[in-house]
Amino acid sequence: MKALISAIIGSILCISACGVAAQAKPEDVIKFRKGAYQVIGWHNATLARMIKGEMPFDAAEFARNAEIIAVMSNVVPNAFVAGSDKGETRAKPEIWSDAANFKKAVDSFRAEATKLAQVSKTATTLDQVRSQYAATAKTCGACHDNFRNK
Amino acid sequence: MKALISAIIGSILCISACGVAAQAKPEDVIKFRKGAYQVIGWHNATLARMIKGEMPFDAAEFARNAEIIAVMSNVVPNAFVAGSDKGETRAKPEIWSDAANFKKAVDSFRAEATKLAQVSKTATTLDQVRSQYAATAKTCGACHDNFRNK
Repeated sequence: MKALISAIIGSILCISACGVAAQAKPEDVIKFRKGAYQVIGWHNATLARMIKGEMPFDAAEFARNAEIIAVMSNVVPNAFVAGSDKGETRAKPEIWSDAANFKKAVDSFRAEATKLAQVSKTATTLDQVRSQYAATAKTCGACHDNFRNK
Repeated sequence: MKALISAIIGSILCISACGVAAQAKPEDVIKFRKGAYQVIGWHNATLARMIKGEMPFDAAEFARNAEIIAVMSNVVPNAFVAGSDKGETRAKPEIWSDAANFKKAVDSFRAEATKLAQVSKTATTLDQVRSQYAATAKTCGACHDNFRNK
């Protein structure tokens, strides 16, 4: 029963673009998935450096990068198409076998990244974004810890 | 003089995130760049299939994919950091040596992709998006023809 519920949630997780996703080769899905995370990682690098004081805080630049991450947080759920668990990927099988918890993890990321983008829009100081950045980064880490191989 | 102007435009092209970009290793820039185009290609695949009649037109889905491409069209200009011309890349040297024309090509893509997202928001039929899709695809092709190796 749990497996069935997971399977149903797994197919719901593919919230859209399933038409094209269902027809895509697993290796192409994996390339897209890695690409999406490259884009997130790149923009997060700028946020992280500002947070750590390694580069000066630039409110507009922080907001721009946060906004792209928020957009991408809604892209990644579609990148875990069933069948894309094999190949050059660090995705753990639990993404599909424990789809309910994976969906929770992804939804947390989406919610916190969206909040970060919102907070960043009006923030003028680093202190105004710091806690929401930490909350967002925590959702990244939680998903990596549980659903990504080292 | 032309080379100097190109160099200046080249540095302007990096419209933002230059703080982190300037410090990134060329191979990381290339990974990010390829990732960004993977994301564009993935979402374009859905649009292309609807345009070709290979999958049913879904206005909301078309608009969602077009919006992501529009966002990404503003991401890619930052992915051509100086020094990222060497390595596993099909980027032609003209991107940097003829930066003025490359900027024009990228700006055309940004403008047409933005229009496509706007048109798609209110479109209810395939015919309402067809010509703007073609205009956008043309800017993709122009850049690939002139600035990407086969």
